[in-house]
Amino acid sequence: MSAFKDEELSKLCVDTVRILSADCVEKANSGHPGAPMGCAPIAHVLFAETMNYAPASPKWFNRDRFVLSNGHACALLYSMLHLTGYDVTLDDLKLFRQLHSKTPGHPENMVTPGVEVSTGPLGQGLSNAVGMALAERHLAAVYNKPDGFESLIDHYTYVICGDGCLQEGITSEACSLAGHWGLGKLIVCYDDNEITIDGNTNLSFTENVSMRYESYGWHVQTVLDVNNLSSLSKAIEAAKAEQGRPSLIKIRTIIGFGSSKEGTGGVHGAPLGASDLSAVKKKFGFDPLQSFNIPSSVSEFYHSCGQRGAANCAQWDHLFSSYQAKYPKEGSELVRRIAGILPDGWIDNLPENPASGGKVAATRNYSGAVLNAVANHCPELVGGSADLSGSNCTFLDISPKSFQKDTPDSRYIHFGVREHAMTAICNGMFAHGAIRPFCATFLNFIGYALGAVRVSALSEMGIIFIMTHDSIGLGEDGPTHQPIEMLDTLRCMPNLLLIRPADLSETKGAYVVAMQHAHTPTVISLSRQNTAFIQGSSYEKVALGGYVIKDWKRPEVLEASVPTLVIASTGTELTLAVQTAQLLSDGGSHWIRVVSLPCTQLFDRQSLEYRLSVFPEGSPVMSIEASGTFGWSRYAHAPFGIKDNTFGLSAPGGTLYEHFGFTVPNLVVKAREVIEFYDGKVVHSLMNKPCLV
Amino acid sequence: MSAFKDEELSKLCVDTVRILSADCVEKANSGHPGAPMGCAPIAHVLFAETMNYAPASPKWFNRDRFVLSNGHACALLYSMLHLTGYDVTLDDLKLFRQLHSKTPGHPENMVTPGVEVSTGPLGQGLSNAVGMALAERHLAAVYNKPDGFESLIDHYTYVICGDGCLQEGITSEACSLAGHWGLGKLIVCYDDNEITIDGNTNLSFTENVSMRYESYGWHVQTVLDVNNLSSLSKAIEAAKAEQGRPSLIKIRTIIGFGSSKEGTGGVHGAPLGASDLSAVKKKFGFDPLQSFNIPSSVSEFYHSCGQRGAANCAQWDHLFSSYQAKYPKEGSELVRRIAGILPDGWIDNLPENPASGGKVAATRNYSGAVLNAVANHCPELVGGSADLSGSNCTFLDISPKSFQKDTPDSRYIHFGVREHAMTAICNGMFAHGAIRPFCATFLNFIGYALGAVRVSALSEMGIIFIMTHDSIGLGEDGPTHQPIEMLDTLRCMPNLLLIRPADLSETKGAYVVAMQHAHTPTVISLSRQNTAFIQGSSYEKVALGGYVIKDWKRPEVLEASVPTLVIASTGTELTLAVQTAQLLSDGGSHWIRVVSLPCTQLFDRQSLEYRLSVFPEGSPVMSIEASGTFGWSRYAHAPFGIKDNTFGLSAPGGTLYEHFGFTVPNLVVKAREVIEFYDGKVVHSLMNKPCLV
Repeated sequence: MSAFKDEELSKLCVDTVRILSADCVEKANSGHPGAPMGCAPIAHVLFAETMNYAPASPKWFNRDRFVLSNGHACALLYSMLHLTGYDVTLDDLKLFRQLHSKTPGHPENMVTPGVEVSTGPLGQGLSNAVGMALAERHLAAVYNKPDGFESLIDHYTYVICGDGCLQEGITSEACSLAGHWGLGKLIVCYDDNEITIDGNTNLSFTENVSMRYESYGWHVQTVLDVNNLSSLSKAIEAAKAEQGRPSLIKIRTIIGFGSSKEGTGGVHGAPLGASDLSAVKKKFGFDPLQSFNIPSSVSEFYHSCGQRGAANCAQWDHLFSSYQAKYPKEGSELVRRIAGILPDGWIDNLPENPASGGKVAATRNYSGAVLNAVANHCPELVGGSADLSGSNCTFLDISPKSFQKDTPDSRYIHFGVREHAMTAICNGMFAHGAIRPFCATFLNFIGYALGAVRVSALSEMGIIFIMTHDSIGLGEDGPTHQPIEMLDTLRCMPNLLLIRPADLSETKGAYVVAMQHAHTPTVISLSRQNTAFIQGSSYEKVALGGYVIKDWKRPEVLEASVPTLVIASTGTELTLAVQTAQLLSDGGSHWIRVVSLPCTQLFDRQSLEYRLSVFPEGSPVMSIEASGTFGWSRYAHAPFGIKDNTFGLSAPGGTLYEHFGFTVPNLVVKAREVIEFYDGKVVHSLMNKPCLV
Repeated sequence: MSAFKDEELSKLCVDTVRILSADCVEKANSGHPGAPMGCAPIAHVLFAETMNYAPASPKWFNRDRFVLSNGHACALLYSMLHLTGYDVTLDDLKLFRQLHSKTPGHPENMVTPGVEVSTGPLGQGLSNAVGMALAERHLAAVYNKPDGFESLIDHYTYVICGDGCLQEGITSEACSLAGHWGLGKLIVCYDDNEITIDGNTNLSFTENVSMRYESYGWHVQTVLDVNNLSSLSKAIEAAKAEQGRPSLIKIRTIIGFGSSKEGTGGVHGAPLGASDLSAVKKKFGFDPLQSFNIPSSVSEFYHSCGQRGAANCAQWDHLFSSYQAKYPKEGSELVRRIAGILPDGWIDNLPENPASGGKVAATRNYSGAVLNAVANHCPELVGGSADLSGSNCTFLDISPKSFQKDTPDSRYIHFGVREHAMTAICNGMFAHGAIRPFCATFLNFIGYALGAVRVSALSEMGIIFIMTHDSIGLGEDGPTHQPIEMLDTLRCMPNLLLIRPADLSETKGAYVVAMQHAHTPTVISLSRQNTAFIQGSSYEKVALGGYVIKDWKRPEVLEASVPTLVIASTGTELTLAVQTAQLLSDGGSHWIRVVSLPCTQLFDRQSLEYRLSVFPEGSPVMSIEASGTFGWSRYAHAPFGIKDNTFGLSAPGGTLYEHFGFTVPNLVVKAREVIEFYDGKVVHSLMNKPCLV
């Protein structure tokens, strides 16, 4: 509570934040002044009174986390970061929304110190915060000790969000879970300004939000006037005191407070304009001719707040040193986890292929075995499934109980049927640190979560997506469940790896790649149906994205310099490719090569020399994948897959493979067509083309 | 209430439905017996007592709509359809989940008479139902008349859904809106069986569902035992009586009722097995040795229910004839709308290009003008935006008010920030009939709705998606808002058209294509920033997907047989392609062709001859699009776009175009690189390849 008793100073602080935020938007001639001006008092109370943070150590592990879920209000956040002493200068504020600045148009965790997660797509931030609070609860349960280290990990997660975040279904999912888990240290300040872009909330949002959050098991309070700082402050204190339930504080605000357009949508997403901004400054007693003006008393006050956190941070460092001394195993493990370094030997006990003649299984089963082997070594692996644990093979033997109110040390999470929130919660756990999250559903239903998957990729979060039932091979559940375009959808997303392993070796390779890419999400695409063991498949070569499985080359064609045909394939179809190659080469004078391409994105990163060694000049390439052929034109002259504009069907998986032509006899016919088509023609490798970008 | 007073018969009916459903699953050796066995009493009351339907006229326009939102329970629905007399035979039931049967693994509206919407992806069906109830309310307001035609359009929409549907965020969004709109004729029966796939709902779903629905403004009731048919029946009657609020009836059921595994997840998704199924049959007094056995009393009873509906249907047809006589304009309009035929002259008043020198605008602005022109002629065009009406330019001048409780005849919908439900509600309106729905958000946020977009495509629903802010050109909002992979994500989806028009002419073409594709959803991708008018752009040729804009060919190269370089482009980059071609051809002896490719999916459907006339043998193709290059390998030897694995940035749009190389000088350099690379090489048109599928 401290120095903040001076009401006049508080008001000056709040008004400074309002004007500073509006100045950012005005200078950029772009942005959102309304929410910052309305919410400034909330940010003020949080940064001045409530939160524990150290601007010079923005990654201090026990800091309170702050998420601005209504990311468009980021001028507010940047203002607070600047004022409290983060490495965000006044010049940075003046570069708001400019190229390569520290102050982009929506907050980005990988750009700005003090920004925990990228927000802007509404609902993501609040859902991330649920993951952060989960992470805190879990890590506290695992690492805190009763002998003076009860609070080694002990922090709150604060959120500001607006109507938009609360309308999005993702937050309904996430907040239902937060209530179920009783995440008492999650505190959400709801900017209840009664305005959305289209107009008053009475156009589309008249539900009783407070009652809804009570139905989730949350602790709900109302603050009738955001400018009444002491009531706001009291409500936040009460929220902190409530440890068993997450808190929602519904705070009535006025969007664009101070502007002539306050309380209207007109002040949401455009600069105030010179005259209105001048008027605001006059109204709040500021010099209307000055911009980016910070009264020295305000500057000093916020600086002192940041300094207070520095002292707390130092104290915690001391506590952690003692902890490391007393609990060296746990201490060094936590240090390692925070640094994101994998433990020694984590890779040593991956399952081996059974002896020849061993029983084959589906790649989802192999995934389950590998996941468990990795999880045994890596306590940071925490995750679960969207109510498909058995089907996804994601249960963790090492954590037979699931994460619940009474078992927070457990590492397995039942997310319920909530794919979007599951992903965003994983993003939040990752952003918290010391956790490598994994999550699972049927591959096709990652479409429900795409908004959050994109944030994983953009925000450089190494989430592991275990996505089973990855083709028509899943059978009877039919077209609503059968991915056709999903592999391509994931292959075209920046900073994401889609790996579709063919057998146990490649499944191991997929996990190794995923674990080693701490800042890239990896989707592992796995089958429901059994696969064969592929001779020549390689666990290490998955990291290359693609590699030659085998050349079928009869002695009489030894003089040929390149294969007659290269067949590229992935996952469960690789075995068909191999059988097709065998048959083709047996019958004639062909040199047939089979290439496994489990991860096109990794393959694209290899040298041209390597890629040409796989797909050489002069050889036509045919691809085989039980999926749409859209993206295969990057590699194959003749893609074989599901015909354009065609969805799957409901029938037994084997029947569907036949129906769609995924049989060796049909593939042999198709391969012959390709060979004939290119016979005598000049064939350029598709690897060899001008690289313009 | 009728004959259904016979309790014994009712019980026999319900048990027959349970066993018949379990028989389907058993015969298929695949499927979900648990929910049908648990919910059979609900289906029985709805089909026997409550609902107004005519099996011989499954498309009767004033029928009550029924949605099985927990689509995996479809054996239940198929059983009811068979028993009541729809064109689903006992043989069809025996082909449950088999190739090309009428009884696929999840319900599909385009396959089975009596199935209103495709369900399976959880939450979609209930959200569709909100759209159906909206459609009913709207059409009733538009067409009903006070002189005996108060009930021309007057039906209920019934839903059965499970825990999964209620966990999904999409239903939170949709049900909040249903409450806001006061859709009193929507009645949802919640199969509260306390079981999800992972186990008891106490693992992940302990919120107070009833309170949540009350917070949305719903009328909520509880039925403590589904097998108490009279209390179930009473609750449904009470729900019908409540006209001002949608109704949720929380009904306690036992999953797999009758099975030895009843009440457990074990009975959810696998056949009961012969011995358990026999035991069930014995328990219910059926011959354990017989399958697909329907007692004649049951058969007769359900048949009579279906017949009752036939009489109602005939009566309605009579009413509608009178209506058409008295209100010929409205009558014929409604007939036309139900048939999905566009009105005469709908295309006549599309906006014309301004005279030379006229002001250019963004394609989103053109879209607004075209949408309004079409909407003026087509009253079936009903839709809105996910709280971005101004940014998306979707306001309808003809409907200045929005659809609300008191203005149900209005055609503009404020969906709030709810992209996923918006899409599913549009699917529901389309499924209802007589409405062509449109919806809008920023292109990148269609990712939030992908689960429902896929249902639009699979279920052949011609939704029009107006997606603005379609590239880095949107500027300062930054990478969270800038699509990079979204164009490809939409281009690879089966039965969907992605059209990215370059100017007003192509925007008109986009709408014409969209309106004419009644059974294919169309996404129109539109710019925030201004575009130029393109000489040679064509409104009609958008239907070809791609076409030649112009050949820049100096006299001295007239002897060349094909262009030196073809530049393909779309949308806002087409003008850059044109300027690049001009510069290149001015400087040398090149023949440069510019191709506009607004819709790759339509282009792919053209004859090889046509496609080769656009992209001829011998000419290298360079593409220019401010997006990822993933899919361009289908058309271009050298794609120019956003580099792989790169997201956008926050900066003014013009700055970003420069930063990412979308400037004429840079494109000229790149084009020269392409020309040099292919100089003297054999170049095959990418159109010309073996077609394997």
